[in-house]
Amino acid sequence: MQRLESALAVAAEAVNRTLDKLVPPVTGAERRVVEAMRYALMGGGKRIRPFLVLNSARLFDVPEEGARRTAAAIEMVHSYSLVHDDLPAMDNADLRRGRPSVHRQFDEATAILAGDGLLTQAFEVLAAPETHADPLVRAELALALARAAGAAGMVGGQMIDLEAQHATLDLEAITRLQRMKTGAIIGFSCEAGAILASAPAAARLALQLYAEDLGLAFQIADDLLDVEGSEAETGKPVGADAAAGKATFVSILGAERARAQAELLVAQAAAHLDLFEQRAELLRQVARFVIDRRT
Amino acid sequence: MQRLESALAVAAEAVNRTLDKLVPPVTGAERRVVEAMRYALMGGGKRIRPFLVLNSARLFDVPEEGARRTAAAIEMVHSYSLVHDDLPAMDNADLRRGRPSVHRQFDEATAILAGDGLLTQAFEVLAAPETHADPLVRAELALALARAAGAAGMVGGQMIDLEAQHATLDLEAITRLQRMKTGAIIGFSCEAGAILASAPAAARLALQLYAEDLGLAFQIADDLLDVEGSEAETGKPVGADAAAGKATFVSILGAERARAQAELLVAQAAAHLDLFEQRAELLRQVARFVIDRRT
Repeated sequence: MQRLESALAVAAEAVNRTLDKLVPPVTGAERRVVEAMRYALMGGGKRIRPFLVLNSARLFDVPEEGARRTAAAIEMVHSYSLVHDDLPAMDNADLRRGRPSVHRQFDEATAILAGDGLLTQAFEVLAAPETHADPLVRAELALALARAAGAAGMVGGQMIDLEAQHATLDLEAITRLQRMKTGAIIGFSCEAGAILASAPAAARLALQLYAEDLGLAFQIADDLLDVEGSEAETGKPVGADAAAGKATFVSILGAERARAQAELLVAQAAAHLDLFEQRAELLRQVARFVIDRRT
Repeated sequence: MQRLESALAVAAEAVNRTLDKLVPPVTGAERRVVEAMRYALMGGGKRIRPFLVLNSARLFDVPEEGARRTAAAIEMVHSYSLVHDDLPAMDNADLRRGRPSVHRQFDEATAILAGDGLLTQAFEVLAAPETHADPLVRAELALALARAAGAAGMVGGQMIDLEAQHATLDLEAITRLQRMKTGAIIGFSCEAGAILASAPAAARLALQLYAEDLGLAFQIADDLLDVEGSEAETGKPVGADAAAGKATFVSILGAERARAQAELLVAQAAAHLDLFEQRAELLRQVARFVIDRRT
């Protein structure tokens, strides 16, 4: 896994540099919201989604600059969702990756606006000529991101998650929730390479199927970490889901079956990449990494 | 003005139908956020921005369907901004156009998500092939909207507005604030017709200059209504800005000079449309309407 770990670090470094360039500090009276956007973006994290974009793009030899910008746009959307999810009216989280959440570091109004600004800028980045010379590719990227992030995707998933505190979800309902809340953006991250390359439908479908399995495995791993991880490793209180009475893959399946299911999904995910042969090796490895991680 | 009033009503009706079609109710577990999005969209309002889109598009004989979708996208962004601005952490408004604001009718978390969903869907609408056959036009629409709505536009303007409660702004600072907070989206509404038509640069510039003057006139009229309007007409408490100690065009210039300035801006706005001759008559009239309105 050494090669994967260094590939993850290289991808994180590349996307951090791109984000720093795309969201420079400003001196105008609006600088507070830009500071909050930068704070939200620069909080670290594994940058799994950017890694997926960069490595799906590499399957097709897409130019790096466009792939990096697309990766940065997706990280903007991911960051905005964390900023808004952390708000007092939502998950009311004081900490995020061991630092004060944006509304604790700044204030609630600034956090709401910073999230809005990040979401908006993601579309600015994708629609700009610097991302791809072909306007059809830019329009497709913006369209696919909007579908993944909107009420039929991430926003809808977060709504269901909030409602789930007053309801008991079964396995089907939780699967749908997670496909929307986290799966849709992971799916777009993997598809982005194919869109950037105007790749044939078969390649696009393979990446979609890979992403679907990967997304569920990722979520099951998260649920397992919530019951088995240590606070020092995850930076989050242990057992938060159970304490909140939330149904998760683990509460429904039990830890053992959940882990078996995650293993199965990772194997399936890897198999979907067969047509890319050895070129997809890092994508196969990251699927395994996602369920083996301790944070 | 009878022709203008019926044209405004027709435009509002057209955009309402388009919005109803673009955001249909859903039956899934996420339905609450979609209900809140529809509630936010269907609260009435004068639909000035959609009117500007439809009538700027008509200068160039752009097909109606694309213009209506673009108008709907802008109204989604306008509605999202009202939903988030009304939140307790921002302006803490219980009422909006005489009805409970979204977070009062639903709850805060749903209001945050509904705003996020509306902002996201605006880009989905613009980037979709149904809006225009040419992908370059779709990418340009998405790019221009993102620039107008983001931290260098509306979001930044709202940040400055919030900060202004702890500072005394001068005329230059207020002008910049309003250009960003309301002017940028009004500007995009007017430019959208030219983008949809791939119109020559001179036409696009004329609409930009018109929009700039219109936007400031609009804001001065708002400030005048805040001191001179009646609560029954505006649906807002009278003198709210003064009570909050906010600097406005009226607090700095006085009502008389502010009104004179608005008159001047309306005349200037109309003059920018000279190259369109009689075709721009409704756009000239709406500039006058904006400063004569009582609500």
